[in-house]
Amino acid sequence: MRHETPSDSDDSGLPSGDWGLGSGDSYHMSPEDFRRYGHEVVDWVADYLAGVGDRPVLPGVEPGEIRAMLPDAPPDYPEPFDAVLADLDRVVMPGITHWQSPGWFGYFPANSSPPSILGELVSAGLGVQGMLWSTSPAATELEHVVADWLVDLLGLPHEWKTTGPGGGVIQMSASDSTHTALVVAREHAEGDVERMVAYASEQAHSSIEKGSRVAGYGHTRFIPVDDRYAMRPEALKVAVEADLAAGLLPVAVVSAVGTTGTTAVDPVRAIGEIARSHGLWHHVDAAYAGTAMICPEYRHYQAGLDLVDSYTFNPHKWMFTNFDCSLFYVADRRPLIEALSILPPYLRNKASESGRVIDYRDWHVPLGRRFRALKLWFVLRAYGAEGIRHHVREHMALATDLASRIDAHPDLELVAPVPFGLVSFRHILGDDATDALAAGVNASGWAYVTPSVIDGRHFVRVSIGQTTTTAAHVARLWELIETTVRRT
Amino acid sequence: MRHETPSDSDDSGLPSGDWGLGSGDSYHMSPEDFRRYGHEVVDWVADYLAGVGDRPVLPGVEPGEIRAMLPDAPPDYPEPFDAVLADLDRVVMPGITHWQSPGWFGYFPANSSPPSILGELVSAGLGVQGMLWSTSPAATELEHVVADWLVDLLGLPHEWKTTGPGGGVIQMSASDSTHTALVVAREHAEGDVERMVAYASEQAHSSIEKGSRVAGYGHTRFIPVDDRYAMRPEALKVAVEADLAAGLLPVAVVSAVGTTGTTAVDPVRAIGEIARSHGLWHHVDAAYAGTAMICPEYRHYQAGLDLVDSYTFNPHKWMFTNFDCSLFYVADRRPLIEALSILPPYLRNKASESGRVIDYRDWHVPLGRRFRALKLWFVLRAYGAEGIRHHVREHMALATDLASRIDAHPDLELVAPVPFGLVSFRHILGDDATDALAAGVNASGWAYVTPSVIDGRHFVRVSIGQTTTTAAHVARLWELIETTVRRT
Repeated sequence: MRHETPSDSDDSGLPSGDWGLGSGDSYHMSPEDFRRYGHEVVDWVADYLAGVGDRPVLPGVEPGEIRAMLPDAPPDYPEPFDAVLADLDRVVMPGITHWQSPGWFGYFPANSSPPSILGELVSAGLGVQGMLWSTSPAATELEHVVADWLVDLLGLPHEWKTTGPGGGVIQMSASDSTHTALVVAREHAEGDVERMVAYASEQAHSSIEKGSRVAGYGHTRFIPVDDRYAMRPEALKVAVEADLAAGLLPVAVVSAVGTTGTTAVDPVRAIGEIARSHGLWHHVDAAYAGTAMICPEYRHYQAGLDLVDSYTFNPHKWMFTNFDCSLFYVADRRPLIEALSILPPYLRNKASESGRVIDYRDWHVPLGRRFRALKLWFVLRAYGAEGIRHHVREHMALATDLASRIDAHPDLELVAPVPFGLVSFRHILGDDATDALAAGVNASGWAYVTPSVIDGRHFVRVSIGQTTTTAAHVARLWELIETTVRRT
Repeated sequence: MRHETPSDSDDSGLPSGDWGLGSGDSYHMSPEDFRRYGHEVVDWVADYLAGVGDRPVLPGVEPGEIRAMLPDAPPDYPEPFDAVLADLDRVVMPGITHWQSPGWFGYFPANSSPPSILGELVSAGLGVQGMLWSTSPAATELEHVVADWLVDLLGLPHEWKTTGPGGGVIQMSASDSTHTALVVAREHAEGDVERMVAYASEQAHSSIEKGSRVAGYGHTRFIPVDDRYAMRPEALKVAVEADLAAGLLPVAVVSAVGTTGTTAVDPVRAIGEIARSHGLWHHVDAAYAGTAMICPEYRHYQAGLDLVDSYTFNPHKWMFTNFDCSLFYVADRRPLIEALSILPPYLRNKASESGRVIDYRDWHVPLGRRFRALKLWFVLRAYGAEGIRHHVREHMALATDLASRIDAHPDLELVAPVPFGLVSFRHILGDDATDALAAGVNASGWAYVTPSVIDGRHFVRVSIGQTTTTAAHVARLWELIETTVRRT
């Protein structure tokens, strides 16, 4: 049903009527200027990607320095776009931390990749808002497809597919996914929220405590961990029973598959059994390590997913898909939709009322949503499952090798096992030597590692997983570590 | 402090060591291929923008049709990127609802513009994650700059600047902003959340009810409206006092400046006075109409902002900045940060501890965040204040004209005042004739209007505000309305 309509130009032939307005001035950049500047910006990004490894990872600016380069007031009249692009280099770039450098070993990665960037560009160009199936059927259905593909790719339960009772949805971050899970658990439970308790290990990500606080839980319990920093399920059981005895309401527990501190792996099955026997909602936070599950040999770390109610992992960390893209799965979508659905008249439509479609607005806090499935689809097709596996396995092998070298070094010691791509270690002489080591590596400019603390002792986090990090970069990092240790 | 480091290539000269891995296969698209495909995608987007007015606004697909065109399983091996781009046309485009068509009169707009698309592209290319000032100082400081610019552009109180006690932050959606405001209000108050009450008008957006429910408030009260669909402040006062007498805790009230149903304007000052006298948090939802405040002649609609605690408006609706980009302002940032700050060891850093920087992770639920200020900066500079004013005024003038024509038409009647760009009207013969009118317009293919309901009666929402909508398009819409009325 294609309709002939003239395009938006002066000689459009559209009726102009007497609207008191001519076709008048336009301040819009024309599609042709967009084409020209678009080519320039693509070249700029291509050059950036090719050369990011040559830049110091951390910017050398003080607070306020970037701001001081910008006027206090916005321009009254349009500025030439060339001037805007020139300021990108002059003002913005000196204040950029280069997360896309192959020398990025900080935090966890926030990976981008060329296919993902192109997906984001198409999504911005289409500018659809996919709150309802009907407001862009392709946005919703492509999201079903990639979410379902990932069920197979990560070895998740088949029931979590949108074709089954569960389903996956893209949220902005694992914090949002975890908060959503805690809200659904709270609504699913009965009783005063002040008496409700959420549980996670002492090593759980800050988003669990934040999600629990934001969702209004009266209590968040941090369960002790074993010597591998994994939750001790018997301690969870004791805590739940103590809370019940005290008249509180245990409502939800979060298992971490790969904690942020050291990528410790909580015993999902044992926690799931306790959750089931006490009616707790069981959420799994695999924000970082979920990507590793594309390699079947790692799936034993998440054994027990049949005892899980919801699960989150972030393709925007390690799956070469740029921020934001966090997958959130539920085993049963009914309690999610019951908790979050509100239907005003202006959102009613035939497709929704037919019950034949999923409206993702009911799957998270925001109503509006952009077309994020597109970039993930681009990535999954451009890499193929084997392409992603190859690079993820390479990162993990590099981490294992680095861990062996640290283990064998007389002045260094690992502080935790290395199940995935994160190596956590310290100097045997203590905090000062460890801090000096991290500072020395970071002062090199080309690499960045994160200093952290566990059990009151300082350590260095080396996260190997940036899209373009290869053996050569880790070899260079090791050389830098060894040199720095010799000097301290 | 630029460092010489070789780029990531086989003859890099980097130490390779004996890592058990050669430089090996790579499944990454090279920067040069990115350049080539990037030019292709830019051309594709330019063609889309030039021709979107020629496409039927609504896709003609049934539930499941898009999905049926895609394989059930992801590819094992990389697919040629040309094949991916071909599927964009073959599979995705038939399921796109064209929000960027100049014939888009549905919902509120979700505008894009060429400078915004280019900003999104740069942001994806840089791939920074701005959770902390230190994880990309430019991302945080540019966000301060554009948020502060908008304080002046919209005539908001100066105290809301980041240089003052308040500040602005970009969130994903007004739903997120409102939810955040309600959480901060809840934490700021004392007592059981089950006894807490949030207030908004009967015409408030669904996100208020959803935000209140998600934040765990025991009660949400919908306050009656006057004949212009604006909240009756005396009814708010009665409700608050009744709740207090019943032992409940009035905690927050949301004023709408431009409701979603009919863009009604609640009396901000009168509501603010009641809020102040009863210690309620006062949040203003100007998600759509906030953009109009760039024209000083509209600011009387938001008089009373000195009695407001938080405010949200969405550049991604009407300010030519693509989704997502929702500004959230607070008059005082301390209760916000107190409610949402959690600081684990891996996020500690010198800049944050100096107290000289703002870490936006403490300003919303998610921890991670992408560099959304960039596209807004591109838009504000490429249009200038006058450029935005010109187009927004043109949209509002077109709405006023259309409203006059409807008012003068014997078979049509307005159902609400037209303060901004939304025209709400119905057929005098009732719901069936009104539905037929909306259906007739939408069946044309080139225009889309939203059927809705108010006071139990059906009406048609015509929202004039898509980036490229001009007088000619509204003239054509009017012709279509007149023709359709004659036929029914």
